[in-house]
Amino acid sequence: MKIGFVQFCPRFGDKDDNLRRVEEMVRGTEADLLVLPELFNTGYLFLFQEEVVRAAEAIPGGPTTQFLLRLAKDEQVHIVAGLAEKAGRRLYNSAVLVSPQGWTRTYRKSHLFVDEKIFYHPGDTGFVTFDIGAARVGLMVCFDWIYPESARVLALKGADIICHPANLVLPFCQKAMVTRCLENGVFAITANRTGTETRGDKSLTYSGMSQIVGPRGEILAQANGDEQVVRIVEIDPLKARDKKVTERNDLLADRRPELYGEITAKENEI
Amino acid sequence: MKIGFVQFCPRFGDKDDNLRRVEEMVRGTEADLLVLPELFNTGYLFLFQEEVVRAAEAIPGGPTTQFLLRLAKDEQVHIVAGLAEKAGRRLYNSAVLVSPQGWTRTYRKSHLFVDEKIFYHPGDTGFVTFDIGAARVGLMVCFDWIYPESARVLALKGADIICHPANLVLPFCQKAMVTRCLENGVFAITANRTGTETRGDKSLTYSGMSQIVGPRGEILAQANGDEQVVRIVEIDPLKARDKKVTERNDLLADRRPELYGEITAKENEI
Repeated sequence: MKIGFVQFCPRFGDKDDNLRRVEEMVRGTEADLLVLPELFNTGYLFLFQEEVVRAAEAIPGGPTTQFLLRLAKDEQVHIVAGLAEKAGRRLYNSAVLVSPQGWTRTYRKSHLFVDEKIFYHPGDTGFVTFDIGAARVGLMVCFDWIYPESARVLALKGADIICHPANLVLPFCQKAMVTRCLENGVFAITANRTGTETRGDKSLTYSGMSQIVGPRGEILAQANGDEQVVRIVEIDPLKARDKKVTERNDLLADRRPELYGEITAKENEI
Repeated sequence: MKIGFVQFCPRFGDKDDNLRRVEEMVRGTEADLLVLPELFNTGYLFLFQEEVVRAAEAIPGGPTTQFLLRLAKDEQVHIVAGLAEKAGRRLYNSAVLVSPQGWTRTYRKSHLFVDEKIFYHPGDTGFVTFDIGAARVGLMVCFDWIYPESARVLALKGADIICHPANLVLPFCQKAMVTRCLENGVFAITANRTGTETRGDKSLTYSGMSQIVGPRGEILAQANGDEQVVRIVEIDPLKARDKKVTERNDLLADRRPELYGEITAKENEI
């Protein structure tokens, strides 16, 4: 199975150009699963909620998901991509999974970062996994990485590959994802963007270094900090189903859930 | 507050010599909290359970805990140390916390590694934190590191500093502990041993590289792979009580426990 990431630099607010450039990068890659960055179609640095309202789209009805569906069908590839979602009056920072068969699934970001809390509603889908034939995939978005519960719940729900669209500004995530893969015995594809966005008096520089990590914490592919590139590796996703780290130790079966009660307790119960 | 680790090479089965050498290393350090390796008094590589039965001691009544209590009182230091514990007919791979005031607390390792499953009973204390005046400390032992739930539960129970006696043979833990500190906003002291133990046809080489990590993932001290050394750093433990990573993001308060149910579910409930 061939899995990969698309690392590129979206132009803020220029959807047509962003979709066109992604299409150019995806055509002919012959991958089975590709992950694009968070908010790949619009850019990240919104200043006012009204801008998000205008940029957000319905899933699957909006033009970006329809574009992805056409591309997935033409190229016979599953694509995971981040975009602002409009659902009724609510806005979410979402990731959509589109299949070559024409179906879509949505994950809504659970852990919002800084000003996203102003613009988006906290995700209400939880951490969900989906069967794409060759593997079971789970979705999380950017800052979800710092919560070990995100990847853990996906692994417990059978994810072989964690698809992780991101717009990272700090360098900690890439190393932490090695730990996430090691502790859960899963593959992870972190698709980060590059470049600097400057709007009004705000400016963010994204750290690139998109990567694919294997279930023993091995880095299988990594981009540098600013290249626009597609990287694809061939993996055996079934390696993520072997959770044995020694002949007597299984990463998931050896858990002691009876000792972990605080993790799911409401704060006033602790 | 001065916190540190003692990295040394225990001699298998030679308790008197191990205690003597630890005493030499601890005397005059003027630390407030010191962490020693797992099974520091006996060595690790037991071949038969009968050997563990002979080596294990009651806590606090056994000679090793009594030795630690004297040392803690003389040096006015809290000490965390790993040892095989005998409790009735059960054996545990435990860590004891001894105070200069003369009290002791015990943690029994929750996640046993390889042959430890033959020799020891799975820990039944859960992850517990203790007030030592200047800080609240939590205990975990060696392989507990690969389970993110260990450090998470300790952080949720208010640990400022995670004390982590270890006998590590692989190199992954030291990097993972950076993630543990970052995701929980806590300090961690990993006290590893050095040297090679060969018994019968078995041999283990321990990786040293004991370290102290701060609540933003910064490495404050690190030993090399084979030196026998005490390293002490001065910290402000209250820094671990500030869980804000941005002006709008709090590592613990922003958790979404309602989405993490699988973590505490029994396997047949998932």
